[in-house]
Amino acid sequence: MAETKIRDTVVHRKARSGYRWDGVELLPYKEDDRALFKAITRQVLFADPALTGELRYFEVAPGGFSTLERHQHMHAVLILRGRGHCLVGTEVKSLETRDLVTVPALTWHQFRASKGEPLGYLCMVNALRDKPQLPSAQDLVRLEADPAIAEFLRS
Amino acid sequence: MAETKIRDTVVHRKARSGYRWDGVELLPYKEDDRALFKAITRQVLFADPALTGELRYFEVAPGGFSTLERHQHMHAVLILRGRGHCLVGTEVKSLETRDLVTVPALTWHQFRASKGEPLGYLCMVNALRDKPQLPSAQDLVRLEADPAIAEFLRS
Repeated sequence: MAETKIRDTVVHRKARSGYRWDGVELLPYKEDDRALFKAITRQVLFADPALTGELRYFEVAPGGFSTLERHQHMHAVLILRGRGHCLVGTEVKSLETRDLVTVPALTWHQFRASKGEPLGYLCMVNALRDKPQLPSAQDLVRLEADPAIAEFLRS
Repeated sequence: MAETKIRDTVVHRKARSGYRWDGVELLPYKEDDRALFKAITRQVLFADPALTGELRYFEVAPGGFSTLERHQHMHAVLILRGRGHCLVGTEVKSLETRDLVTVPALTWHQFRASKGEPLGYLCMVNALRDKPQLPSAQDLVRLEADPAIAEFLRS
């Protein structure tokens, strides 16, 4: 079936198996490789000059995790697939499919898949946003002083 | 378990059964009842002064449909549940779970659930957006001149 475009916009992009989509590229998680992360991919589902937000899909393989980071912009997350845990601020939360997670400004956060299955999540952000900050050695010492956070970070 | 807040933001809202969420109200689809729609609910999953976008979940019961409308703002849609059809511009598309639909500016659109199951979809929009326009009698005549659209609108 031919792709339908209205004023250069592709109207319908079909879901493929394995949480992929027609016309959506599978991207490395970060261009920048200073960051500490493991086994995670990124797909930009919606980014358009007409939209002030972007919707991305991240998938963390079993045992993998996103970068521990913080930034001024907010994350609005819906778990689309699987289960895992997240750290938001000083809170470690157990996550199930379709749970919602809000990461407020300048709040340390990380997402970790369970050992048994991937963790896939949608993340809405502002199109105009600041770059993430990574924790300093001192920030890590502070975070790991909390036994629950230390256990989460080593899991 | 107590709700965790960081600077007045609830960090984690659990998914309930039936595509509901903790702390998310089930809303009527529209406050305005001029519009023609049937068997549809709305839940605002993310709307925050820090976000330039909003993420809503709409659920159309089997055989139901959203309003046929258009507006300047773009819709970025991911089918979360079930199947159905949509009209975007002059195109009728069959929709499966996780398909992506982009509704460009000033483009007539409507979502219809299949007879057998609900159609649930996430819709990202700009927080600042214009009000929908409804079709005039003349617009409807023009749309229904296309047999595929006429069939869709009567389905």
